[in-house]
Amino acid sequence: MIGVGLIGFGYWGPNLARNFVGAEGAELRYVAERDTSRHKIIRSLCGSAQVGVGVDEMLADESVHAVVIATPAASHYDLGLRALEAGKHVLVEKPMTSNVREARRLIETAESRGLTLMVDHTFIYTGAVRYIRSLIASGALGEILYYDSTRINLGLFQHDVDVLWDLAVHDLSIMAYLFDEEPVAVSALGMSHVPGTPTNIAYLTLTFASNRIAHINVNWLAPVKIRRTIIGGSRKMIVYDDLEPSEKIKIYDKGVHVTNNPDAIQQMRVGYRIGDMLAPNLDASEALRSEVQHFIDCVSSGKTPETPGAMGLKVVQILEAASISMRRGGQLINIETLRPGGLAHDSVIGSENAIFSHQG
Amino acid sequence: MIGVGLIGFGYWGPNLARNFVGAEGAELRYVAERDTSRHKIIRSLCGSAQVGVGVDEMLADESVHAVVIATPAASHYDLGLRALEAGKHVLVEKPMTSNVREARRLIETAESRGLTLMVDHTFIYTGAVRYIRSLIASGALGEILYYDSTRINLGLFQHDVDVLWDLAVHDLSIMAYLFDEEPVAVSALGMSHVPGTPTNIAYLTLTFASNRIAHINVNWLAPVKIRRTIIGGSRKMIVYDDLEPSEKIKIYDKGVHVTNNPDAIQQMRVGYRIGDMLAPNLDASEALRSEVQHFIDCVSSGKTPETPGAMGLKVVQILEAASISMRRGGQLINIETLRPGGLAHDSVIGSENAIFSHQG
Amino acid sequence: MIGVGLIGFGYWGPNLARNFVGAEGAELRYVAERDTSRHKIIRSLCGSAQVGVGVDEMLADESVHAVVIATPAASHYDLGLRALEAGKHVLVEKPMTSNVREARRLIETAESRGLTLMVDHTFIYTGAVRYIRSLIASGALGEILYYDSTRINLGLFQHDVDVLWDLAVHDLSIMAYLFDEEPVAVSALGMSHVPGTPTNIAYLTLTFASNRIAHINVNWLAPVKIRRTIIGGSRKMIVYDDLEPSEKIKIYDKGVHVTNNPDAIQQMRVGYRIGDMLAPNLDASEALRSEVQHFIDCVSSGKTPETPGAMGLKVVQILEAASISMRRGGQLINIETLRPGGLAHDSVIGSENAIFSHQG
Amino acid sequence: MIGVGLIGFGYWGPNLARNFVGAEGAELRYVAERDTSRHKIIRSLCGSAQVGVGVDEMLADESVHAVVIATPAASHYDLGLRALEAGKHVLVEKPMTSNVREARRLIETAESRGLTLMVDHTFIYTGAVRYIRSLIASGALGEILYYDSTRINLGLFQHDVDVLWDLAVHDLSIMAYLFDEEPVAVSALGMSHVPGTPTNIAYLTLTFASNRIAHINVNWLAPVKIRRTIIGGSRKMIVYDDLEPSEKIKIYDKGVHVTNNPDAIQQMRVGYRIGDMLAPNLDASEALRSEVQHFIDCVSSGKTPETPGAMGLKVVQILEAASISMRRGGQLINIETLRPGGLAHDSVIGSENAIFSHQG
Repeated sequence: MIGVGLIGFGYWGPNLARNFVGAEGAELRYVAERDTSRHKIIRSLCGSAQVGVGVDEMLADESVHAVVIATPAASHYDLGLRALEAGKHVLVEKPMTSNVREARRLIETAESRGLTLMVDHTFIYTGAVRYIRSLIASGALGEILYYDSTRINLGLFQHDVDVLWDLAVHDLSIMAYLFDEEPVAVSALGMSHVPGTPTNIAYLTLTFASNRIAHINVNWLAPVKIRRTIIGGSRKMIVYDDLEPSEKIKIYDKGVHVTNNPDAIQQMRVGYRIGDMLAPNLDASEALRSEVQHFIDCVSSGKTPETPGAMGLKVVQILEAASISMRRGGQLINIETLRPGGLAHDSVIGSENAIFSHQG
Repeated sequence: MIGVGLIGFGYWGPNLARNFVGAEGAELRYVAERDTSRHKIIRSLCGSAQVGVGVDEMLADESVHAVVIATPAASHYDLGLRALEAGKHVLVEKPMTSNVREARRLIETAESRGLTLMVDHTFIYTGAVRYIRSLIASGALGEILYYDSTRINLGLFQHDVDVLWDLAVHDLSIMAYLFDEEPVAVSALGMSHVPGTPTNIAYLTLTFASNRIAHINVNWLAPVKIRRTIIGGSRKMIVYDDLEPSEKIKIYDKGVHVTNNPDAIQQMRVGYRIGDMLAPNLDASEALRSEVQHFIDCVSSGKTPETPGAMGLKVVQILEAASISMRRGGQLINIETLRPGGLAHDSVIGSENAIFSHQG
Repeated sequence: MIGVGLIGFGYWGPNLARNFVGAEGAELRYVAERDTSRHKIIRSLCGSAQVGVGVDEMLADESVHAVVIATPAASHYDLGLRALEAGKHVLVEKPMTSNVREARRLIETAESRGLTLMVDHTFIYTGAVRYIRSLIASGALGEILYYDSTRINLGLFQHDVDVLWDLAVHDLSIMAYLFDEEPVAVSALGMSHVPGTPTNIAYLTLTFASNRIAHINVNWLAPVKIRRTIIGGSRKMIVYDDLEPSEKIKIYDKGVHVTNNPDAIQQMRVGYRIGDMLAPNLDASEALRSEVQHFIDCVSSGKTPETPGAMGLKVVQILEAASISMRRGGQLINIETLRPGGLAHDSVIGSENAIFSHQG
Repeated sequence: MIGVGLIGFGYWGPNLARNFVGAEGAELRYVAERDTSRHKIIRSLCGSAQVGVGVDEMLADESVHAVVIATPAASHYDLGLRALEAGKHVLVEKPMTSNVREARRLIETAESRGLTLMVDHTFIYTGAVRYIRSLIASGALGEILYYDSTRINLGLFQHDVDVLWDLAVHDLSIMAYLFDEEPVAVSALGMSHVPGTPTNIAYLTLTFASNRIAHINVNWLAPVKIRRTIIGGSRKMIVYDDLEPSEKIKIYDKGVHVTNNPDAIQQMRVGYRIGDMLAPNLDASEALRSEVQHFIDCVSSGKTPETPGAMGLKVVQILEAASISMRRGGQLINIETLRPGGLAHDSVIGSENAIFSHQG
């Protein structure tokens, strides 16, 4: 029986708690939440878990084997490090940290102590994303040409992250899960429309060594909610609409004949193919439930999670490069050679610079 | 009675011919089309117009007062210049020319001879776009914060223009018509997925001196057709879906309170406003018909068209800057200080460079 | 403080329990559920309520002032009557009873004892339906010409009620709430496609003394879920789509000019009017929460509920007439002069007869 | 070369003319239209066809082998009879006639003279309907359980037919084409909301000897346009939305297990099956073009059309029975034993009676 301690009971914490309470092989023993006005609700929802106990006390308890961190992003690194150094396995909210340096440090600490470090990239555990991965693996899409995602709505303006770190993070984790190829460089532009608040609209374009291209459109200030990702393949193409209640994935047998016939190229003959559309039946079970069970299994068996610290790092690395690009007016930033720096706060300033840069 | 000569009877020519035949105060006297296999159809559709006559002969005829150019983009400049120098008023297809230098030359020639030079930016004559302009003018949207357009489908791969010059051109003309403020700089990235063909997918971001931002997503290789533009204002927001049969424009009374109260900013208090949505009844008359009549009126009265050469230049200037940005890996290019150069062909090479640039 | 006892903890019971636990001025003191395997869940969700106690004991407790009945329809009458005779106020699930006779008996019993009898027609407490009622009351729609509802999906096949008593019941309660005019007669046809199960598809048409007409299309065996109601008025028309997340109601300024000019009628001149469409912002609070609070208020103050037994009777009366019509091959049945009879079980046979009637 | 004469150049005539002009093996020799103001347009669109000639003269010309009748429904019988008696093959608009008696007479006349009699039920020649028929024939849907169609919009109020004869006619022809089984009886109710005009809203339910049921919802006074037909099978189900630009047909692998196991029935165990959805790629060629070519082929070869007079009769028979049912308050009318009577005009009166019948 794995003893679990949860830190943070804000927006997402209750969902994590509910799933750990219902999970096999684990027991929620602590919930640490500074806001005492939340304690009553926590008690009603978390069964026998101890409430009103500090993080130090929780980490000192040997019956706690794993810690779940559901606090604001800025605190992920510090809490994660303390938990790992106390010998606890860790499941941390996305984004894993505020910058690459911190992400690397968490990974090193977990590895040196043989602990599980997993990031809560929930989309990876949905029936839709898992289906897309299997489809790509089967070769049915052919060569992946592009990934184009729109993730917009009238969203909560957050303190500690901008729209890139809040919404684009989902697409970056999905791409890291779906693709075998890493992006090489990133260009980003965005804007802060509400004085003193982080960037609320941003456009992110990723390039690859191959002729693949990826684009992410995120917006906190949109009149309509859209969650639509198009994945273009040389054989088939996918439209993934996460707001569709029953047909989230549509597979189109559409495309162009990529011919190498020089004459054909001369004459620009491009053959079109328009075939059927299939909307497969997907596993509708709750993603977070599968994820929580998977975390427990990894902690018990020592196997590597499907969303390990390494994936969290990849995501943070791109976000950090994108934040730099945004401050440099969309300059294409090479992700590999990124010199790490703290950007959690800068990224906010960054968006303001983006404004000034147009005025200067 | 204005005598009209049409050059080019390919995809768009028949629509222009039909509307000139039906228009008041004009008579279609010539249709010049090299492809003789089209002459039979032209005769059946263009009433008494002479067919099979060369451009020179058409331009030599004094009974021809205006020339309509519906040929591939690469020939717009040469044909336009010859027509103007022959003393003819000109209506030219979009894009007006392949680069800024040519556009400026056409404008100068028209001005020096007191001739009408109008560009066929058809969207400007739709009930939808005209309604949006009046709404913006009324101040109902408040301050315009962003323009975000998605214009994708499984499209015809063209010889002489890439997807930017084929599709983004529409949004650039719409923005030139709607906004009083010019974009300052542009960043673009794209890709050619079919060997030997122009860029078929591109992302264009425009910045302004104010905190406005614009973005255009164009794609010839998409499984679904989307024509959706979101215009975000500080008071209200518009979603313009050109594929909607009856409700093309939806006006959302949504937004955030932009407060200047320093405390409020400290505490990141952003007030939300969610109100009604209105889909106004729009003028459904054919845009091209209104446009053709407008051209005839301008030629007769000498007044300046709503889509003059100057608008065509603005559009070409941004497209040229975007093509340069695309070849430079998304670098933000200042539109004003753009040094003109021929890009119609380069833009194709540009997209290939975009590939190499990631490998180098 | 009103003491409440809940009978039945199946599909809907938990929602009622949650809202009574959270309500002001009431306390959930008992939950009676025969299925002992549910008792654990009940205890975790219903705070201090007693579980595992029989109905008799619950009714004998003077600290129980009101009883909520969430059992299968067939038992509503018996349990409702016992509760009323024990001096308890009653909130009963829809349909109130299986036939008119039973409904009348419950109403009489409640009246004679001065007790509140309320039916759980939840839709009446939604922001959408309440908005429509206010719109009709304002005269904005003009004369109501028709009510046309489609309520279909791949639904649970139920034991004790057919699709008419399961789904059409919603539209009948909505009409009873919206309209000041009662339907005069009903014609219904349906079919049972699964041997030994109740009617799973049915079509119900209602006529009125005026030129109003109403139609309800219900189906348990549809591949897609639809919840769409069109209300046609002489001035404006409403499309109410309950599956729309944010725009459930759309008000169309469309219609025809109803002219009394005899010449115009001679020449069949009907003028069309096509104007704007408005989707008003609606109260999004949970309907059941408002309803539960309303029940508590009625019990406390003695005022008549918005969904009283009288409304439950109207609905059951039409359902019983429709079931008769279905067995008589769609014959138009006068609702007023309906001779009451037990139909809860007959309605199932009815649908089978509907089959035979075509063979004979 | 088949000589063709067209009678009537109103709403649909131009489409027929265009397709006969473009067809192989036929020549449009006459267009008879009383409204002389239309003659100019006819000349511009119908090439060498003679205009302004009376029907008698046209029928007297031996170079005219086939006559196409595109006049108001009330005149179909008289014109059709005259054409057949003049030895001409006939393609007549839907509905074929105003009643069964007339339809039978036309069929007999055509047969006795060995002439082709074809009805313009255009939907039968669409890629969508033809695909559905092949799918049903393949057995993929299993047993057909129901046909449920909604065909509504803000429609033109017509002189000579009501909404049933104008819109339901489409579904009746589609059913006649798709199904091997004839409906046994029909029940219909409708209403006329505009004084002195025909029924503008109607509900039609058809029963069969099997446990199949069909329903048609037609409305000229709706705020939105809907063209959606659901076909429920025991194995799979189809949603056919004729307004969908590219995915008109969606095939759902959904349904319930129809078990004959008595225990299972006792316990009402119904197994659900939810699988993939497929939207097949359909033939997008113009239906009317295929239909016109098919008519020419039938005239040349003497083979029976896919939409012969016999199909036209089936459709008229049901419409006549439905009109009777509407006047008798929805009474189920047996279609086979229908005693024919002139209803073209009655059907209008019928809807008015429908109003009175509720007041009496």
